Amino acid sequence: IKLTQLSGAMIGKGNHRHFMMKEIMEQPAVIGETLNSFFNPKTRTITLPDLPFDWRDIPKMTIVACGTSFYAGMVAKYWFETLAGLGVEVDIASEFRYRSMPLAPGGLALFISQSGETADTLAALRYARENGQHIASIVNVEESSMGRESDFVFHTKAGPEIGVASTKAFTCQLVTLACLAIDAGKQRGVLDHEREALLSAALSEVPARAAEILENDTNIRDLAAEIFEARDILYIGRGPGYPVAMEGALKLKELSYIHAEGYAAGELKHGPIALIDEAVPVIVVAPTDHYFEKTASNMQEVMARNAQVIFLSDAAGMKQLGEHALGSIELPTVDPFVAPILYSIPVQILAYHVAVLKGTDVDQPRNLAKSVTVE
Amino acid sequence: IKLTQLSGAMIGKGNHRHFMMKEIMEQPAVIGETLNSFFNPKTRTITLPDLPFDWRDIPKMTIVACGTSFYAGMVAKYWFETLAGLGVEVDIASEFRYRSMPLAPGGLALFISQSGETADTLAALRYARENGQHIASIVNVEESSMGRESDFVFHTKAGPEIGVASTKAFTCQLVTLACLAIDAGKQRGVLDHEREALLSAALSEVPARAAEILENDTNIRDLAAEIFEARDILYIGRGPGYPVAMEGALKLKELSYIHAEGYAAGELKHGPIALIDEAVPVIVVAPTDHYFEKTASNMQEVMARNAQVIFLSDAAGMKQLGEHALGSIELPTVDPFVAPILYSIPVQILAYHVAVLKGTDVDQPRNLAKSVTVE
Repeated sequence: IKLTQLSGAMIGKGNHRHFMMKEIMEQPAVIGETLNSFFNPKTRTITLPDLPFDWRDIPKMTIVACGTSFYAGMVAKYWFETLAGLGVEVDIASEFRYRSMPLAPGGLALFISQSGETADTLAALRYARENGQHIASIVNVEESSMGRESDFVFHTKAGPEIGVASTKAFTCQLVTLACLAIDAGKQRGVLDHEREALLSAALSEVPARAAEILENDTNIRDLAAEIFEARDILYIGRGPGYPVAMEGALKLKELSYIHAEGYAAGELKHGPIALIDEAVPVIVVAPTDHYFEKTASNMQEVMARNAQVIFLSDAAGMKQLGEHALGSIELPTVDPFVAPILYSIPVQILAYHVAVLKGTDVDQPRNLAKSVTVE
Repeated sequence: IKLTQLSGAMIGKGNHRHFMMKEIMEQPAVIGETLNSFFNPKTRTITLPDLPFDWRDIPKMTIVACGTSFYAGMVAKYWFETLAGLGVEVDIASEFRYRSMPLAPGGLALFISQSGETADTLAALRYARENGQHIASIVNVEESSMGRESDFVFHTKAGPEIGVASTKAFTCQLVTLACLAIDAGKQRGVLDHEREALLSAALSEVPARAAEILENDTNIRDLAAEIFEARDILYIGRGPGYPVAMEGALKLKELSYIHAEGYAAGELKHGPIALIDEAVPVIVVAPTDHYFEKTASNMQEVMARNAQVIFLSDAAGMKQLGEHALGSIELPTVDPFVAPILYSIPVQILAYHVAVLKGTDVDQPRNLAKSVTVE
């Protein structure tokens, strides 16, 4: 038996009604802690420990996870592909382990799990090991089965997460993945020093920007009051904003039992737009990145069908479209690279307030367990 | 200007109230027509025309599509991976075209579109061409932009599809993809002659099995009456049954404006199970394949949360679990290889009857167009 060292402060609720809000509020600190493992403030560079594989030799990366961790993997796919020219396949663990996917010899398989004990993810890890993959994992709990069975473990420094719906573990997974992608891009010769410095600087500002978001969250509560009686909600985004939309929808499902669904904004016209009327709020994740104009055009389409839109964007986005939405959440202006990390925070807060208004059990939603250790 | 040759009979509704039901009923015939392009009944083998590429040289396949065609691609991923050992990435066209994914030189990019004019898919095709891919497409309309811009076009023989919600074009896409996967598996030395003969025989029986399903559809109408007032529905499956569940949910969304969502059954415990109560029917796609026991266990979990379950399976599945469900649809016992094609038919019929009961415009759902030729 190993004892974990937990201070009483880390597992109490502090001044918060729920663990979930405490854990949301901890994000600037724990994102900073996680970042500190990799970021050198003097050189403004990302430095990873010695890895038991060389990024230049990796033909293909496979990321496997469940639930919220799977959405972190979906965001990372964009990062590894664009920053490191590394092809990534992201799969749901319960699908991956039974599907006999051909794996490139010498590929890297990366497993993401808060607990490190998720049964399907652990089984997927063992399958990948039997099939000649380098095995890495991103886990939050110090001692875990996945950690023990990996060639290399990246520990997120989120601290104990008590709320069943993951919040700080998710953003710490994203920060870790962002550092990995920068390291891979550097080693593979895709990122030059200048671009690395820009991206690293953007990452190093995430804790401060996250704190700003948390300080200006009062209007999110008001928006929650506008939508908490909705029966159905659509969440849309493009590019890395698409998995953020998926995660936002999952948070609403878990906490408030509202049937929210995340969708790639460009897919709306291929079916789901038929659902839209004035009773279905649409939440739009739209930082001003190179997807912005397209997402904005999808937002206008749903508004033309009388949807009540909640618009998440930055100052430039607000200037262009903010006044047309039912409500908007203005986020800090940041490099699009780090937007998925920061935009994840208001979607957590929104789901939290909706759940509180509905009177559901925020920290222990019905039917759910914190770690899914059965198949 | 080119004129297409359409007989009056092909574009009338025949004895049906809606084009959609006419098109559902045509499936045994048009699946047979599509199959005839590739299947040699004498040798019981699949023979493709000469292709401008060699399956053995393809390092990686990328399938790109939107909406229903995207789900056909998701099914095909399982087929190409297991039957031909060929790694496949499936992507939504509106995501793929903006994401700068690294593409393996000499890879095959396959585009699926009923009309051959879908704007995002066409743009994705052009991107793939610029990036050194062989270009193939599966289209249903004889003359199309995608057809003209492909190295090779596979024409599905579904005939004109008038109903906005795709039915027969989808199953003909699946049949075409199944033939391609067999051909690839044969050429790549993964399928031996015996296995090829078994799979080809299973495919050749699809028209007859589809006709059986259509002759025994009365209980599907009764089940529609049980669920048509539901506000939310979950559709679950595993493996190739997962995209069938996605397609089933999309059909309900498009036609009946019920918020149905498709989910990989193994993901339920990671969040969506919180949605489940007696008001949310769960439709389970579960042929007795090697995923069956796991899907059955997910079905029992949702029943323990009082969900009303509709169970799609074959005689063996019914024997094991049929009596526990609110309702069940028994499908013919077939090789699991062809199950996704056949299980797609009852999900179409169910969505049709739900829409008729709700009084929505079956052939022309609100907000939707047949071909999405704008971005």
